[in-house]
Amino acid sequence: MKIGRQEHRSSGLSTSNADTIIVRGKDLCGELLGKVGFTEYVWFLLTGTMPQPAQRKVLDATLVAIAEHGLVPSVQAARMTYAAAPEALQGAVAAGLLGCGSVILGAAESAGRLLADVVKRAGESDLKTAATAVVSEKRAVKQPIPGYGHPLHKGEDPRATRLFEVAAEAGLPDDHRRAAKQVEALLPELTGKQLVMNVSAAIPAVLLDAGFPVGALKGVPLLARTASLIAHLLEEQAKPIGFVLSHAAGKAIEYDGPVPPGFERGDS
Amino acid sequence: MKIGRQEHRSSGLSTSNADTIIVRGKDLCGELLGKVGFTEYVWFLLTGTMPQPAQRKVLDATLVAIAEHGLVPSVQAARMTYAAAPEALQGAVAAGLLGCGSVILGAAESAGRLLADVVKRAGESDLKTAATAVVSEKRAVKQPIPGYGHPLHKGEDPRATRLFEVAAEAGLPDDHRRAAKQVEALLPELTGKQLVMNVSAAIPAVLLDAGFPVGALKGVPLLARTASLIAHLLEEQAKPIGFVLSHAAGKAIEYDGPVPPGFERGDS
Amino acid sequence: MKIGRQEHRSSGLSTSNADTIIVRGKDLCGELLGKVGFTEYVWFLLTGTMPQPAQRKVLDATLVAIAEHGLVPSVQAARMTYAAAPEALQGAVAAGLLGCGSVILGAAESAGRLLADVVKRAGESDLKTAATAVVSEKRAVKQPIPGYGHPLHKGEDPRATRLFEVAAEAGLPDDHRRAAKQVEALLPELTGKQLVMNVSAAIPAVLLDAGFPVGALKGVPLLARTASLIAHLLEEQAKPIGFVLSHAAGKAIEYDGPVPPGFERGDS
Amino acid sequence: MKIGRQEHRSSGLSTSNADTIIVRGKDLCGELLGKVGFTEYVWFLLTGTMPQPAQRKVLDATLVAIAEHGLVPSVQAARMTYAAAPEALQGAVAAGLLGCGSVILGAAESAGRLLADVVKRAGESDLKTAATAVVSEKRAVKQPIPGYGHPLHKGEDPRATRLFEVAAEAGLPDDHRRAAKQVEALLPELTGKQLVMNVSAAIPAVLLDAGFPVGALKGVPLLARTASLIAHLLEEQAKPIGFVLSHAAGKAIEYDGPVPPGFERGDS
Repeated sequence: MKIGRQEHRSSGLSTSNADTIIVRGKDLCGELLGKVGFTEYVWFLLTGTMPQPAQRKVLDATLVAIAEHGLVPSVQAARMTYAAAPEALQGAVAAGLLGCGSVILGAAESAGRLLADVVKRAGESDLKTAATAVVSEKRAVKQPIPGYGHPLHKGEDPRATRLFEVAAEAGLPDDHRRAAKQVEALLPELTGKQLVMNVSAAIPAVLLDAGFPVGALKGVPLLARTASLIAHLLEEQAKPIGFVLSHAAGKAIEYDGPVPPGFERGDS
Repeated sequence: MKIGRQEHRSSGLSTSNADTIIVRGKDLCGELLGKVGFTEYVWFLLTGTMPQPAQRKVLDATLVAIAEHGLVPSVQAARMTYAAAPEALQGAVAAGLLGCGSVILGAAESAGRLLADVVKRAGESDLKTAATAVVSEKRAVKQPIPGYGHPLHKGEDPRATRLFEVAAEAGLPDDHRRAAKQVEALLPELTGKQLVMNVSAAIPAVLLDAGFPVGALKGVPLLARTASLIAHLLEEQAKPIGFVLSHAAGKAIEYDGPVPPGFERGDS
Repeated sequence: MKIGRQEHRSSGLSTSNADTIIVRGKDLCGELLGKVGFTEYVWFLLTGTMPQPAQRKVLDATLVAIAEHGLVPSVQAARMTYAAAPEALQGAVAAGLLGCGSVILGAAESAGRLLADVVKRAGESDLKTAATAVVSEKRAVKQPIPGYGHPLHKGEDPRATRLFEVAAEAGLPDDHRRAAKQVEALLPELTGKQLVMNVSAAIPAVLLDAGFPVGALKGVPLLARTASLIAHLLEEQAKPIGFVLSHAAGKAIEYDGPVPPGFERGDS
Repeated sequence: MKIGRQEHRSSGLSTSNADTIIVRGKDLCGELLGKVGFTEYVWFLLTGTMPQPAQRKVLDATLVAIAEHGLVPSVQAARMTYAAAPEALQGAVAAGLLGCGSVILGAAESAGRLLADVVKRAGESDLKTAATAVVSEKRAVKQPIPGYGHPLHKGEDPRATRLFEVAAEAGLPDDHRRAAKQVEALLPELTGKQLVMNVSAAIPAVLLDAGFPVGALKGVPLLARTASLIAHLLEEQAKPIGFVLSHAAGKAIEYDGPVPPGFERGDS
């Protein structure tokens, strides 16, 4: 059955014959393997060109920034899944990645699109006017401003601060970083709340300043988090806590439905 | 409800307060972010110590080796999933990772355990005796020898060859590499088949020679493949082929069940 | 770390002690198991009340309608995943479900919300005015009209026709079915295209007429498709085609990137 | 690239043309939709024949038995995932299903294979001899006996007891139920532990007595659990607790790694 009207019949990522594997035009074994680091290779896979040192440095920094932050929900989901299904490490990693969505981690892409929009409009007016317009339009349709506010890091998100330093040290242009700062400065007036820029706005700010493709922004937390999930699942093999997490979580929730006469509540 | 008899109540990966995020004892923003690359950070997350240059080099090489090999089944599953559910990039990545199982990619871990077993037993006898014993035991219970043979690369898997070179250039000990070669040499006699070492044996060989934890071996293809999946899904945004793949696949399969009288077969 | 401002601390679905499991107020073993069918139980789990016969009949019909339609993309993804990772049936089912998204199958919920909107507004004007307004607003913001058009069933989607008959036979009110028909009648004029109602509009039409909760609409295709995925994976155990599907799909796609000098294209 | 040596090129589940959808030889809209319930259809999808009333009754009973048991780990994983990624209900369901593995729920299949083995060998000796042999062999290779013991229901698993009653009421043969009881009777002597038969042994016992295919046993908890996950996710929409669960779980775990000098532990 034909679904959709897809017109393309080609892919430009890889081809191979019995002796040689080509990735984006280069011989994987002859030109890449052992010669480029994984971060450079990721950039190359996504864009088709090798990163400049400043680009690699910033991609490295964002991946390091977002990989690990303790027993966050996606890590808990992965550890519970692994405890229940130890035959499939890939399933536990997948369960963890499924929690990298619009509310958590996925904000990197929506924040990036917002910043790109601010930068684009600033070219036609000025940064403050552009940022005010973009934020106001979001507010008018009751959409949140992605990338600002954090449940724990209220003063500032130390990862955001540090990412901006790294981008500056690397000598990158700062259009998107300035846009991100401008949005932060406007939020108290436009939303009535003091919301600090968090890592989900800082990541797209520095990556877009480096020329990273906006459509791959959501991939950065996914890639970083995969590393962290593997580390947690390695720890889970040695010190399993998946069911301990679940037991503690379950005890925090009361049953609020009816019970038949005579039923005695126990440890459900 | 208490499931299992888990005794642990702790995790050693990360903690934080409002200002500082600690990862395995280091201050994420002060000591790591902007100072270490992602590959080094992955090694650190998994082991708690920073890699030596040779260790980082080999981990980089394995990640580069295994990330991308064209429209393999897991990539196809991810692209079809993304075409059907573009609202959730994480779901398409997860669908792709779920196909990194015991038959494809997951062999890295089972091959690693086999090589580690050979190396351990070689300490008590010699390499050939140890490899013969390990392979023969597998054959006796009709288990396959993971990491040997490839559908396309029949002469040699160029990635395996190159990974061994990289490990040698990096100056790593070669216990597991020699074990892998020994197994390859024995296979024609013990299995009746000429099966070349593929990338799924080469990856654990070089990583175990570098001191990488065996329980995290399966994580290497998962992490590498995540990068490739993101690159494919970025391409899918611009040049969608998910439904084209599915249409072509469907046409290769006949319906072999009964049909009611009068039913005319069409393009199902 | 506290994420979000969730105020609830309770759940009303189930509690238990060592002897008794309560589900929504009933004793699972004493009042439900062996006494109610699975479809009735699904309705009860979702709503807290047992379905009337007409409600059960329509839920059964929608589940039967949407479960199986051959080697659709999600089934292919599941079969490829199972071929690569046979150790985890649950992973293959999960990979299949991940392809039940906004473009395929997931349209049931968005179509349901559209129909509910039409019915609500019709109370304030009349059906045609309401449907015209709802469709026009979607068109104005360039959103598609979910639940209309089908790649294969162009004359009519036979499942949609039959579902409407079943709902009529069951004696259900027809507010949402009439809304669905009204939208279909308006589409040629409002969109310039003759798009027939497909099963993704018919399912919410009959279910909402039966009082099914709109927030669970997307669950109906997911539940139905799970059954079909299990049937396909059972067949895959006996007659594996996962890699055949992938091979055929891969051959439909050309590599369109550069190659190094001297590279000879083969069967990638 | 050709992977594996798959010989099949056909599937017997479904075909269609523009007017008609055939499922296992029957016209979906003319012969099935509105005429058979979902449970019957599931049996038909899996086996190609419509179930006898006793078969349908037992399949219904097992699906009802296993669908819902409160905030078990897979439900928690799904609710956390949905809270973080509300754009993809299918992702939250998939995350929940990924936790239906060898330790939890997945035991139905391994228990079924054990019971089928006992029944087969009993034909060559007697039930007690066969069960003793099968259990002893498992013990000899230090494998657990799947389907016995429960963290909460220690006296008896009320679902197991009730399923056996339902199967008896339905008039099914009792070979596998007797095998399950025989294994239970032998466990104190053979394992030194009083382990009661739980629902994961009772489900395959009654289903195999009904002629259900052993390769689809694991699908029963997956299908049943999908219904429960959808009910929990519908509740999560109205009364979100996903992050509450995660917060409580996180508080149960201490960080046991080093910290830099001066770091003050907070609420991580």
